[in-house]
Amino acid sequence: MPKVASLVWKNDHLELIDQTKLPLSFEVVQCTTYKEVADAIRTMKVRGAPAIGATAAFGVALGALELRAVPWAEFLSGMDKVFAELAATRPTAVNLFWALERMGKVVEDGKGIAPVNAVVDALVDEAELIAQEDIDTCHRIGEVGASVISSGAGVLTICNAGALATVDYGTALGVIRAAHSQGKDFHVYTPETRPFLQGSRLTAWELLEEGIPTTLITDSMAGCLMQAGKVQVVIVGADRIAANGDTANKIGTYAFSVLAKYHGIPFYVAAPLSTVDRGIASGRQIPIEERPAGEVTHICGHQIAPTGINVYNPAFDVTPAGLISGIITEAGMIVPPFGLHLEQAFASK
Amino acid sequence: MPKVASLVWKNDHLELIDQTKLPLSFEVVQCTTYKEVADAIRTMKVRGAPAIGATAAFGVALGALELRAVPWAEFLSGMDKVFAELAATRPTAVNLFWALERMGKVVEDGKGIAPVNAVVDALVDEAELIAQEDIDTCHRIGEVGASVISSGAGVLTICNAGALATVDYGTALGVIRAAHSQGKDFHVYTPETRPFLQGSRLTAWELLEEGIPTTLITDSMAGCLMQAGKVQVVIVGADRIAANGDTANKIGTYAFSVLAKYHGIPFYVAAPLSTVDRGIASGRQIPIEERPAGEVTHICGHQIAPTGINVYNPAFDVTPAGLISGIITEAGMIVPPFGLHLEQAFASK
Repeated sequence: MPKVASLVWKNDHLELIDQTKLPLSFEVVQCTTYKEVADAIRTMKVRGAPAIGATAAFGVALGALELRAVPWAEFLSGMDKVFAELAATRPTAVNLFWALERMGKVVEDGKGIAPVNAVVDALVDEAELIAQEDIDTCHRIGEVGASVISSGAGVLTICNAGALATVDYGTALGVIRAAHSQGKDFHVYTPETRPFLQGSRLTAWELLEEGIPTTLITDSMAGCLMQAGKVQVVIVGADRIAANGDTANKIGTYAFSVLAKYHGIPFYVAAPLSTVDRGIASGRQIPIEERPAGEVTHICGHQIAPTGINVYNPAFDVTPAGLISGIITEAGMIVPPFGLHLEQAFASK
Repeated sequence: MPKVASLVWKNDHLELIDQTKLPLSFEVVQCTTYKEVADAIRTMKVRGAPAIGATAAFGVALGALELRAVPWAEFLSGMDKVFAELAATRPTAVNLFWALERMGKVVEDGKGIAPVNAVVDALVDEAELIAQEDIDTCHRIGEVGASVISSGAGVLTICNAGALATVDYGTALGVIRAAHSQGKDFHVYTPETRPFLQGSRLTAWELLEEGIPTTLITDSMAGCLMQAGKVQVVIVGADRIAANGDTANKIGTYAFSVLAKYHGIPFYVAAPLSTVDRGIASGRQIPIEERPAGEVTHICGHQIAPTGINVYNPAFDVTPAGLISGIITEAGMIVPPFGLHLEQAFASK
């Protein structure tokens, strides 16, 4: 049993690790309403594309539980609000919309056939299934990807694509966990990942808990580590992958992909197929969330920039498919051309 | 008169802006002894290669003033300690050693010829000359480099190569100031420059004071700004330039140079010739200072990483000459091959 699970369903409420409090304090928040779930996603108490998807599914389940004793018409209009509020929390991670769509299908399937409370039960079951599938998927991603890490390697990641970014185990960190459990001896370089510091606060904490050797760096140090020959592979997560393989991930990922290309270092994306948005042809169509200036001008409430300064704070950037060596999924390692091979992976599901 | 001067000599003491307190508070520290000067350099109250050089020169002057009434033998052994302590403050910026060498030559020239107090006066004069030359040099660098900035351009810099990094006016920011004073309309992207935040704390503050349009970003955003076509030129300072043009500058500079190359964006280094270390053939011989882990794990005293995490914190990296379009100096724009053209610049001085 891994030591970290970002979210746990407890029959009638959801428990989340408050990731904004790590690593100084380990606090669990209890969400008993869908509004609390939406707020937890919006304020990044829970983050990471797969974790956002599963959390939103439980948000739908909680919204449904609040409506379990009402007539169908009232249930449907109530659920519309639930879906709309959860969909409006964060724009980039497609797993959010993927999970809401799966939950919406349960409502559609039951409409006019089943009693409301049966559909509510089915929604809770579906959310639990999404969460369990995410755990299984991450373990499978780990198995598929472990071979890209050799003993003696330096591994660069970014942000937190770990147990905290998923229901458990992680995507990029799932690959790292799997390689570690195979007894490989390697070193992970963890960039702090400004502005939200998911690297220093979350990935460093996860790796330390797990006993996987790691060194914390600032984002600006990745280039000179590559120059010094200390990085043999880059493995990152993903927030949305377009049909052609273009990948939105944490801001800074694109720069790492260019640096990896320049230094001849393979660059892998580790993500479940639910991160692939087959509805968009390329990364140009991925909406990029811009977050508040305060995340850049303040750290832990402490002002670090002059008052009145103009700030640009995109949460993600897009790495073009041409800079990606492979996409590590539960359906195997997808290699270029990604458009064709992603379609084949979906077809064989 | 520019609004910022990092250091001012006041007959018998040196006034420095305490740069660790900016931008929240503007505090001037008074150094009346060479030990206070060494401490100010070590703790980065004053930083930036040219400013460190001039400050160290005044440190020598203060050390000499403390010894003005002693016999020659005592003066010489006292000054040995002064030079040694100042030389041990920071290892990478060559201007420190360049300034100490100039000051040492004044002692050498007077030895056995002049009375001690005449040499002390000469040392004070020499320090003032170094400071004035630095101001003149920065203005000349500005004139030489202004043409690399066109109206409408996006300009990326890093760290603070501004008035605060020099005695006044700045090197990279000197170029930016000169282009601005020519009435050009352009936009500066200021990366915060982790871990010490010289970008958000100092450059953002200088540009805001000067009324030059700027946007603060995290270091990880430079790549996607280039990808989006928003950066037309990169201009950085330098802490040490090897004879072949390899340039040590703030950590993250190397990554920017690779990103600029990939996007076809010209990459300029702006620095006085005193930053060139003709004694070393290439960047491999430049000593790179590693600073305390606490600069990465804590911000403003606030812990942002788990206790016990391993940290790598080099203050500088080396950009190979091949990634540099030109070195903007007081002797003109030096273009490749840098080895030859730097030598020509020194020969024509």
